[in-house]
Amino acid sequence: MKKFPVHRAFTLLEPGPVVLVTTAGDSRPNIMTLSWTMVLDFTPRFAFMTGMWNFSCRSLLSTRECVIAVPAVELAETTVRIGSCSGAGISKFEKFGLTPLEASTVKAPLIAECYANIECRVVDHIERHNIFVLDAVEVWIDEKRKSPRFFHAVGDGRFIVDGKKINHREIMIEKLPAGV
Amino acid sequence: MKKFPVHRAFTLLEPGPVVLVTTAGDSRPNIMTLSWTMVLDFTPRFAFMTGMWNFSCRSLLSTRECVIAVPAVELAETTVRIGSCSGAGISKFEKFGLTPLEASTVKAPLIAECYANIECRVVDHIERHNIFVLDAVEVWIDEKRKSPRFFHAVGDGRFIVDGKKINHREIMIEKLPAGV
Repeated sequence: MKKFPVHRAFTLLEPGPVVLVTTAGDSRPNIMTLSWTMVLDFTPRFAFMTGMWNFSCRSLLSTRECVIAVPAVELAETTVRIGSCSGAGISKFEKFGLTPLEASTVKAPLIAECYANIECRVVDHIERHNIFVLDAVEVWIDEKRKSPRFFHAVGDGRFIVDGKKINHREIMIEKLPAGV
Repeated sequence: MKKFPVHRAFTLLEPGPVVLVTTAGDSRPNIMTLSWTMVLDFTPRFAFMTGMWNFSCRSLLSTRECVIAVPAVELAETTVRIGSCSGAGISKFEKFGLTPLEASTVKAPLIAECYANIECRVVDHIERHNIFVLDAVEVWIDEKRKSPRFFHAVGDGRFIVDGKKINHREIMIEKLPAGV
Protein backbone atom coordinates (compact mmCIF):
# COMPACT_ATOMS: atom_id res chain seq x y z
CA MET A 1 0.00 0.00 0.00
CA LYS A 2 1.22 3.44 -0.95
CA LYS A 3 0.08 6.83 0.35
CA PHE A 4 -2.37 8.63 -1.93
CA PRO A 5 -2.78 12.43 -1.75
CA VAL A 6 -5.61 13.19 0.68
CA HIS A 7 -6.81 16.14 -1.41
CA ARG A 8 -7.55 13.69 -4.25
CA ALA A 9 -9.36 11.10 -2.11
CA PHE A 10 -12.78 12.40 -3.19
CA THR A 11 -12.06 11.02 -6.69
CA LEU A 12 -12.18 7.49 -5.21
CA LEU A 13 -15.75 7.90 -3.91
CA GLU A 14 -17.31 10.46 -6.25
CA PRO A 15 -18.12 7.84 -8.94
CA GLY A 16 -20.33 6.05 -6.39
CA PRO A 17 -18.71 2.60 -6.01
CA VAL A 18 -19.85 0.06 -3.45
CA VAL A 19 -17.50 0.32 -0.46
CA LEU A 20 -16.57 -1.65 2.63
CA VAL A 21 -16.37 0.18 5.96
CA THR A 22 -14.28 -1.25 8.77
CA THR A 23 -14.62 -0.35 12.43
CA ALA A 24 -12.65 -1.36 15.52
CA GLY A 25 -14.83 -3.38 17.88
CA ASP A 26 -14.57 -4.29 21.56
CA SER A 27 -13.39 -7.80 20.73
CA ARG A 28 -12.67 -7.75 16.98
CA PRO A 29 -12.92 -5.39 14.00
CA ASN A 30 -16.00 -5.53 11.81
CA ILE A 31 -16.77 -4.83 8.15
CA MET A 32 -19.97 -3.59 6.56
CA THR A 33 -20.93 -3.05 2.93
CA LEU A 34 -22.28 0.37 1.95
CA SER A 35 -23.60 1.89 -1.23
CA TRP A 36 -25.28 4.99 0.19
CA THR A 37 -22.33 7.41 0.29
CA MET A 38 -21.59 10.85 -1.13
CA VAL A 39 -18.86 13.46 -1.28
CA LEU A 40 -19.51 16.64 0.72
CA ASP A 41 -16.40 18.66 -0.12
CA PHE A 42 -12.90 18.47 -1.55
CA THR A 43 -10.97 18.52 1.73
CA PRO A 44 -12.29 15.71 1.45
CA ARG A 45 -15.38 15.27 3.55
CA PHE A 46 -17.79 12.41 2.96
CA ALA A 47 -21.27 11.41 4.12
CA PHE A 48 -22.80 7.98 4.37
CA MET A 49 -26.06 6.62 5.70
CA THR A 50 -26.18 3.55 7.92
CA GLY A 51 -28.93 2.59 10.29
CA MET A 52 -28.76 2.15 14.05
CA TRP A 53 -29.73 -1.50 13.49
CA ASN A 54 -26.29 -2.23 11.98
CA PHE A 55 -23.70 -3.85 14.22
CA SER A 56 -21.00 -1.44 12.97
CA CYS A 57 -23.06 1.59 13.93
CA ARG A 58 -22.31 1.21 17.63
CA SER A 59 -18.55 1.12 16.95
CA LEU A 60 -18.79 4.15 14.68
CA LEU A 61 -20.52 6.10 17.43
CA SER A 62 -18.16 5.01 20.22
CA THR A 63 -14.82 5.14 18.36
CA ARG A 64 -15.76 8.03 16.01
CA GLU A 65 -13.51 6.55 13.32
CA CYS A 66 -13.50 4.00 10.49
CA VAL A 67 -11.80 3.01 7.26
CA ILE A 68 -13.66 3.30 3.95
CA ALA A 69 -12.17 0.61 1.70
CA VAL A 70 -12.87 0.51 -2.03
CA PRO A 71 -12.95 -3.03 -3.48
CA ALA A 72 -12.33 -3.68 -7.18
CA VAL A 73 -14.73 -5.87 -9.13
CA GLU A 74 -12.89 -9.12 -8.30
CA LEU A 75 -14.23 -8.69 -4.74
CA ALA A 76 -17.83 -8.07 -5.84
CA GLU A 77 -19.30 -11.36 -4.64
CA THR A 78 -17.39 -11.21 -1.34
CA THR A 79 -18.59 -7.63 -0.85
CA VAL A 80 -22.21 -8.64 -1.41
CA ARG A 81 -21.87 -11.55 1.03
CA ILE A 82 -20.29 -9.26 3.66
CA GLY A 83 -23.34 -7.03 3.31
CA SER A 84 -25.72 -9.94 3.70
CA CYS A 85 -24.69 -11.08 7.21
CA SER A 86 -24.16 -9.49 10.62
CA GLY A 87 -20.79 -9.14 12.36
CA ALA A 88 -22.40 -10.05 15.69
CA GLY A 89 -20.56 -13.13 16.99
CA ILE A 90 -18.36 -13.69 13.93
CA SER A 91 -15.15 -12.31 12.47
CA LYS A 92 -15.94 -11.18 8.95
CA PHE A 93 -12.21 -10.87 8.20
CA GLU A 94 -11.80 -14.60 8.98
CA LYS A 95 -15.07 -15.70 7.41
CA PHE A 96 -14.31 -14.00 4.10
CA GLY A 97 -10.54 -14.56 4.04
CA LEU A 98 -9.62 -10.88 4.17
CA THR A 99 -6.42 -9.49 5.69
CA PRO A 100 -6.60 -6.64 8.23
CA LEU A 101 -3.66 -4.22 8.09
CA GLU A 102 -2.85 -1.67 10.76
CA ALA A 103 -3.93 1.85 9.82
CA SER A 104 -1.73 4.83 10.66
CA THR A 105 -4.19 7.19 12.34
CA VAL A 106 -7.24 5.11 13.35
CA LYS A 107 -7.80 1.81 15.19
CA ALA A 108 -10.06 0.42 12.44
CA PRO A 109 -8.04 -1.80 10.07
CA LEU A 110 -7.31 -1.38 6.39
CA ILE A 111 -8.33 -4.27 4.12
CA ALA A 112 -5.25 -5.54 2.26
CA GLU A 113 -7.32 -6.94 -0.63
CA CYS A 114 -8.99 -3.59 -1.45
CA TYR A 115 -7.62 -1.15 -4.02
CA ALA A 116 -8.03 1.92 -1.80
CA ASN A 117 -8.35 2.47 1.96
CA ILE A 118 -9.40 5.83 3.38
CA GLU A 119 -8.81 6.41 7.11
CA CYS A 120 -11.67 8.60 8.37
CA ARG A 121 -12.83 10.43 11.48
CA VAL A 122 -16.53 10.92 12.20
CA VAL A 123 -17.05 14.67 12.53
CA ASP A 124 -20.84 14.72 12.75
CA HIS A 125 -23.79 12.36 13.13
CA ILE A 126 -27.13 13.68 11.89
CA GLU A 127 -29.39 11.45 13.95
CA ARG A 128 -32.70 12.27 12.28
CA HIS A 129 -31.45 10.82 8.97
CA ASN A 130 -28.77 8.36 10.23
CA ILE A 131 -26.18 10.32 8.23
CA PHE A 132 -22.54 10.14 9.31
CA VAL A 133 -20.18 12.92 8.18
CA LEU A 134 -16.50 11.97 7.94
CA ASP A 135 -13.18 13.62 7.20
CA ALA A 136 -10.48 11.62 5.42
CA VAL A 137 -7.17 11.81 7.28
CA GLU A 138 -4.93 9.32 5.45
CA VAL A 139 -5.38 7.42 2.19
CA TRP A 140 -3.68 4.30 0.83
CA ILE A 141 -3.85 2.65 -2.58
CA ASP A 142 -2.50 -0.60 -3.96
CA GLU A 143 0.03 0.90 -6.36
CA LYS A 144 0.60 -2.50 -8.03
CA ARG A 145 -2.96 -2.54 -9.41
CA LYS A 146 -3.22 -0.69 -12.69
CA SER A 147 -6.64 0.41 -13.98
CA PRO A 148 -8.82 -1.26 -11.34
CA ARG A 149 -12.51 -1.39 -12.19
CA PHE A 150 -15.06 -0.74 -9.45
CA PHE A 151 -18.74 -1.67 -9.20
CA HIS A 152 -21.95 0.17 -8.37
CA ALA A 153 -25.10 -1.21 -6.74
CA VAL A 154 -28.39 -0.85 -8.57
CA GLY A 155 -30.16 -1.77 -5.34
CA ASP A 156 -32.15 -4.72 -6.71
CA GLY A 157 -29.35 -7.30 -6.46
CA ARG A 158 -27.65 -6.24 -9.68
CA PHE A 159 -24.37 -4.36 -9.94
CA ILE A 160 -22.86 -2.24 -12.72
CA VAL A 161 -19.15 -2.57 -13.42
CA ASP A 162 -17.10 0.44 -14.55
CA GLY A 163 -16.93 0.65 -18.33
CA LYS A 164 -14.99 3.02 -20.57
CA LYS A 165 -13.76 6.43 -19.43
CA ILE A 166 -14.52 9.71 -21.16
CA ASN A 167 -12.55 12.90 -20.65
CA HIS A 168 -14.17 16.34 -20.40
CA ARG A 169 -11.34 17.91 -18.42
CA GLU A 170 -10.94 20.78 -20.88
CA ILE A 171 -14.54 21.93 -20.26
CA MET A 172 -14.20 21.75 -16.46
CA ILE A 173 -10.61 22.83 -15.97
CA GLU A 174 -11.47 26.19 -14.38
CA LYS A 175 -13.81 24.52 -11.87
CA LEU A 176 -11.45 21.79 -10.64
CA PRO A 177 -9.79 22.26 -7.25
CA ALA A 178 -6.02 22.87 -7.22
CA GLY A 179 -3.90 19.80 -7.83
CA VAL A 180 -6.75 17.59 -9.07
CA MET B 1 -42.57 9.43 -20.69
CA LYS B 2 -44.13 6.64 -18.68
CA LYS B 3 -44.75 6.42 -14.94
CA PHE B 4 -42.18 4.36 -13.05
CA PRO B 5 -43.01 2.82 -9.65
CA VAL B 6 -41.95 5.30 -6.95
CA HIS B 7 -40.82 2.51 -4.62
CA ARG B 8 -38.21 1.52 -7.21
CA ALA B 9 -36.92 5.05 -7.86
CA PHE B 10 -33.92 4.52 -5.56
CA THR B 11 -32.53 2.08 -8.16
CA LEU B 12 -32.09 5.02 -10.56
CA LEU B 13 -29.80 6.93 -8.18
CA GLU B 14 -28.14 4.21 -6.06
CA PRO B 15 -25.49 3.46 -8.74
CA GLY B 16 -24.26 7.07 -8.40
CA PRO B 17 -24.82 8.56 -11.88
CA VAL B 18 -24.30 12.23 -12.65
CA VAL B 19 -27.72 13.91 -12.56
CA LEU B 20 -29.35 17.15 -13.62
CA VAL B 21 -31.56 18.99 -11.13
CA THR B 22 -34.20 21.40 -12.38
CA THR B 23 -35.85 24.11 -10.31
CA ALA B 24 -38.62 26.60 -11.05
CA GLY B 25 -37.29 30.15 -10.97
CA ASP B 26 -38.93 33.57 -10.67
CA SER B 27 -38.53 34.23 -14.40
CA ARG B 28 -37.43 30.87 -15.87
CA PRO B 29 -36.55 27.35 -14.77
CA ASN B 30 -32.91 26.48 -14.17
CA ILE B 31 -30.79 23.32 -14.40
CA MET B 32 -27.73 22.33 -12.41
CA THR B 33 -25.43 19.32 -12.70
CA LEU B 34 -24.82 17.26 -9.56
CA SER B 35 -22.69 14.28 -8.71
CA TRP B 36 -22.83 14.46 -4.92
CA THR B 37 -26.03 12.54 -4.22
CA MET B 38 -27.02 9.51 -2.15
CA VAL B 39 -29.99 7.34 -1.29
CA LEU B 40 -31.28 7.67 2.30
CA ASP B 41 -34.06 5.13 2.29
CA PHE B 42 -36.31 3.02 0.07
CA THR B 43 -39.46 5.18 0.29
CA PRO B 44 -37.41 6.64 -1.56
CA ARG B 45 -35.65 9.49 0.16
CA PHE B 46 -32.51 11.06 -1.30
CA ALA B 47 -29.83 13.50 -0.17
CA PHE B 48 -27.67 15.79 -2.23
CA MET B 49 -25.17 18.48 -1.46
CA THR B 50 -25.17 21.81 -3.21
CA GLY B 51 -23.67 25.04 -2.01
CA MET B 52 -25.39 28.31 -1.24
CA TRP B 53 -23.27 29.86 -4.00
CA ASN B 54 -25.27 27.97 -6.66
CA PHE B 55 -28.00 29.88 -8.47
CA SER B 56 -30.39 26.92 -8.10
CA CYS B 57 -29.99 26.84 -4.34
CA ARG B 58 -32.19 29.92 -3.83
CA SER B 59 -35.02 28.31 -5.84
CA LEU B 60 -34.65 25.03 -3.94
CA LEU B 61 -35.02 26.88 -0.65
CA SER B 62 -37.96 29.04 -1.74
CA THR B 63 -39.96 26.47 -3.76
CA ARG B 64 -38.94 23.39 -1.70
CA GLU B 65 -39.17 21.23 -4.82
CA CYS B 66 -37.16 20.08 -7.83
CA VAL B 67 -36.82 17.39 -10.46
CA ILE B 68 -33.82 15.05 -10.43
CA ALA B 69 -33.28 14.03 -14.06
CA VAL B 70 -30.95 11.19 -15.02
CA PRO B 71 -29.21 11.70 -18.37
CA ALA B 72 -27.84 8.76 -20.38
CA VAL B 73 -24.29 8.89 -21.73
CA GLU B 74 -25.29 10.59 -25.00
CA LEU B 75 -25.92 13.73 -22.91
CA ALA B 76 -22.57 13.56 -21.10
CA GLU B 77 -20.92 16.54 -22.77
CA THR B 78 -24.08 18.67 -22.46
CA THR B 79 -24.35 17.71 -18.78
CA VAL B 80 -20.75 18.77 -18.13
CA ARG B 81 -21.31 22.08 -19.93
CA ILE B 82 -24.50 22.72 -17.91
CA GLY B 83 -22.41 22.25 -14.77
CA SER B 84 -19.75 24.64 -15.96
CA CYS B 85 -21.88 27.79 -16.27
CA SER B 86 -24.35 29.71 -14.10
CA GLY B 87 -28.06 30.03 -14.78
CA ALA B 88 -27.98 33.68 -13.76
CA GLY B 89 -29.26 35.72 -16.71
CA ILE B 90 -29.54 32.80 -19.15
CA SER B 91 -31.96 30.02 -19.96
CA LYS B 92 -30.02 26.76 -19.79
CA PHE B 93 -32.91 24.94 -21.49
CA GLU B 94 -32.53 27.25 -24.53
CA LYS B 95 -28.76 27.43 -24.44
CA PHE B 96 -28.37 23.65 -24.43
CA GLY B 97 -31.35 22.77 -26.64
CA LEU B 98 -33.25 20.86 -23.98
CA THR B 99 -37.03 20.54 -23.79
CA PRO B 100 -38.86 21.34 -20.54
CA LEU B 101 -41.95 19.22 -19.92
CA GLU B 102 -44.60 19.96 -17.33
CA ALA B 103 -44.28 17.82 -14.20
CA SER B 104 -47.37 16.45 -12.48
CA THR B 105 -46.75 17.44 -8.85
CA VAL B 106 -44.04 20.15 -8.86
CA LYS B 107 -43.46 23.41 -10.74
CA ALA B 108 -39.91 22.43 -11.74
CA PRO B 109 -39.89 20.96 -15.27
CA LEU B 110 -38.94 17.48 -16.43
CA ILE B 111 -36.20 17.27 -19.08
CA ALA B 112 -37.59 15.46 -22.15
CA GLU B 113 -34.11 14.31 -23.29
CA CYS B 114 -33.30 12.52 -20.00
CA TYR B 115 -33.99 8.83 -19.43
CA ALA B 116 -35.55 9.31 -15.99
CA ASN B 117 -37.15 12.26 -14.19
CA ILE B 118 -37.89 12.14 -10.46
CA GLU B 119 -40.25 14.79 -9.05
CA CYS B 120 -39.06 15.61 -5.53
CA ARG B 121 -40.01 17.65 -2.50
CA VAL B 122 -37.36 19.08 -0.16
CA VAL B 123 -38.16 17.70 3.30
CA ASP B 124 -35.08 18.97 5.14
CA HIS B 125 -32.09 21.26 4.65
CA ILE B 126 -29.10 20.55 6.86
CA GLU B 127 -27.50 23.97 6.71
CA ARG B 128 -24.19 23.16 8.36
CA HIS B 129 -23.31 20.73 5.54
CA ASN B 130 -25.44 22.18 2.69
CA ILE B 131 -27.27 18.85 2.50
CA PHE B 132 -30.79 18.78 1.02
CA VAL B 133 -33.04 15.83 1.90
CA LEU B 134 -35.75 15.02 -0.65
CA ASP B 135 -38.67 12.67 -1.06
CA ALA B 136 -39.57 11.37 -4.51
CA VAL B 137 -43.26 11.88 -5.27
CA GLU B 138 -43.60 10.90 -8.95
CA VAL B 139 -41.17 9.24 -11.36
CA TRP B 140 -41.08 9.10 -15.18
CA ILE B 141 -38.91 7.12 -17.54
CA ASP B 142 -38.48 7.13 -21.30
CA GLU B 143 -39.90 3.69 -21.99
CA LYS B 144 -38.66 3.76 -25.59
CA ARG B 145 -35.03 3.66 -24.44
CA LYS B 146 -33.83 0.11 -23.83
CA SER B 147 -30.68 -0.50 -21.76
CA PRO B 148 -29.59 3.13 -21.31
CA ARG B 149 -26.06 3.55 -19.99
CA PHE B 150 -25.35 6.25 -17.42
CA PHE B 151 -22.11 7.97 -16.43
CA HIS B 152 -20.31 8.69 -13.17
CA ALA B 153 -18.02 11.62 -12.35
CA VAL B 154 -14.51 10.88 -11.15
CA GLY B 155 -14.23 14.50 -10.07
CA ASP B 156 -11.09 15.34 -12.05
CA GLY B 157 -12.80 15.99 -15.39
CA ARG B 158 -13.08 12.31 -16.30
CA PHE B 159 -16.27 10.26 -16.33
CA ILE B 160 -16.88 6.50 -16.14
CA VAL B 161 -19.58 5.01 -18.34
CA ASP B 162 -21.65 2.04 -17.14
CA GLY B 163 -20.11 -1.25 -18.24
CA LYS B 164 -21.40 -4.77 -17.87
CA LYS B 165 -23.95 -5.82 -15.25
CA ILE B 166 -23.48 -8.61 -12.72
CA ASN B 167 -26.29 -10.28 -10.82
CA HIS B 168 -26.02 -11.25 -7.15
CA ARG B 169 -29.74 -11.18 -6.51
CA GLU B 170 -29.79 -14.70 -5.07
CA ILE B 171 -27.37 -13.68 -2.29
CA MET B 172 -29.34 -10.55 -1.38
CA ILE B 173 -32.91 -11.71 -1.95
CA GLU B 174 -33.87 -11.71 1.73
CA LYS B 175 -32.57 -8.16 2.21
CA LEU B 176 -34.34 -6.53 -0.74
CA PRO B 177 -37.41 -4.41 -0.03
CA ALA B 178 -40.78 -5.77 -1.23
CA GLY B 179 -41.40 -5.44 -4.95
CA VAL B 180 -37.80 -4.56 -5.90
